[in-house]
Amino acid sequence: MLSKNRIKFINALKIKKFRQNYQSFIVEGSKSVLELLRSDFEVEFVLGTSDFQQKYSSILSQHQTTFETVTLKELEGLGSFQTNDSCLAVARCKENVFLAVENKEYALVLDDVRDPGNLGTIIRVADWYGIEKIICSPDTTDFYNPKVIAASKGSFCRVKVFYTDLAEYMQHHAPGKVVVGAFLDGQSLYEYHFPVQGGFIVMGNESNGIGEGMERWITNRITIPRVGLAESLNVGIATAVMLDNLRRK
Amino acid sequence: MLSKNRIKFINALKIKKFRQNYQSFIVEGSKSVLELLRSDFEVEFVLGTSDFQQKYSSILSQHQTTFETVTLKELEGLGSFQTNDSCLAVARCKENVFLAVENKEYALVLDDVRDPGNLGTIIRVADWYGIEKIICSPDTTDFYNPKVIAASKGSFCRVKVFYTDLAEYMQHHAPGKVVVGAFLDGQSLYEYHFPVQGGFIVMGNESNGIGEGMERWITNRITIPRVGLAESLNVGIATAVMLDNLRRK
Repeated sequence: MLSKNRIKFINALKIKKFRQNYQSFIVEGSKSVLELLRSDFEVEFVLGTSDFQQKYSSILSQHQTTFETVTLKELEGLGSFQTNDSCLAVARCKENVFLAVENKEYALVLDDVRDPGNLGTIIRVADWYGIEKIICSPDTTDFYNPKVIAASKGSFCRVKVFYTDLAEYMQHHAPGKVVVGAFLDGQSLYEYHFPVQGGFIVMGNESNGIGEGMERWITNRITIPRVGLAESLNVGIATAVMLDNLRRK
Repeated sequence: MLSKNRIKFINALKIKKFRQNYQSFIVEGSKSVLELLRSDFEVEFVLGTSDFQQKYSSILSQHQTTFETVTLKELEGLGSFQTNDSCLAVARCKENVFLAVENKEYALVLDDVRDPGNLGTIIRVADWYGIEKIICSPDTTDFYNPKVIAASKGSFCRVKVFYTDLAEYMQHHAPGKVVVGAFLDGQSLYEYHFPVQGGFIVMGNESNGIGEGMERWITNRITIPRVGLAESLNVGIATAVMLDNLRRK
């Protein structure tokens, strides 16, 4: 049976302050937990139903982690998780490590993306399109928010994120590279050819788009052409369309 | 002050059964409510703060609808809405009217898209890319779910939806048209050219994709090429990428 301390600990990890104090985060759902176990994250413990334990006993036994059998009801009681099917894990956060962009590589830059669902979706989309690095402004929502992890559908294990002051980062790393920004008034994405030397693709805040501080680093203002009447696209959707056009020959 | 009956009525409209009984639905947030007032939906009443009323007095006075001034606290008390900034409206549902697809037109077909956020996103994306009609299986989530309306960001006013048995619909309307289905194993989207004569673009359920009943009507199995390692894309994202490639010359 789950101890009160463990329940308290898991509930605390839903709050950013406590995630930062404990340097731990929650992963829910069998698909994501299995990806976590295969990744290089340090796993603190896994809670799962006896069904889960039986089904994945070989994976669990290979792994140096504490496993505790819990009931589905206990899992459900742990909170407002959407994908909490049969297990939940707690793992150690990684350090916020500097990411450089290699020659011919494109990285995403997020300027204050605030919604955890959007960040999770962007991580998943980046992983689909082979983008391995995301540079985030300090006000971009926390990578380890359970909603980010859930929406990323396991892609949080593969895509690397670095939180930093974007102006400072760009000052050192933008020169000589293209910095493509998604705007509502720019050159048509369909007419733009992403140079092979690589660079950055910048996506802005849900309400305000790319901020002034970041805008001065943009070398190419790009727009996703609109045929109909919707005022805008969601930032996760816009990221996917930008990356699809990047990868399309 | 809001009457208990009105509060009860609004809360009831969060549930599909009651929306169907009353043939009414909720629209929240000033942006969506303003689009609603400009649309051909019959609006039953609008609740708004005095700020909202002052700011949009000319629009409200042009409109034959009841307006009630409420406090922000009263609005917040009305439920779990995310975008409930300064107003909320209740409008009449439209009848489920048959939609034919014209020559050179593409319509979306949704085979059991269950998540309201996904349906709302798809409606918004359709509106962006100039798709005016969506044919939905009966098990696709309800168009008038408040989460669908909220996620569509006003596009629910422009995109038409028809719920029907897809097999029966396809039997009559698919012959002679392309029926493009999004699968994880098909021809590359980048190599496919959508014929000018128009047809259908079919998106499947979040977990199971396109069902067998619908699959037999597919003329072209199409895949969004993957560069990285994510297992799949969210259905809203996949719809956007399909439509972007449709519109890209």
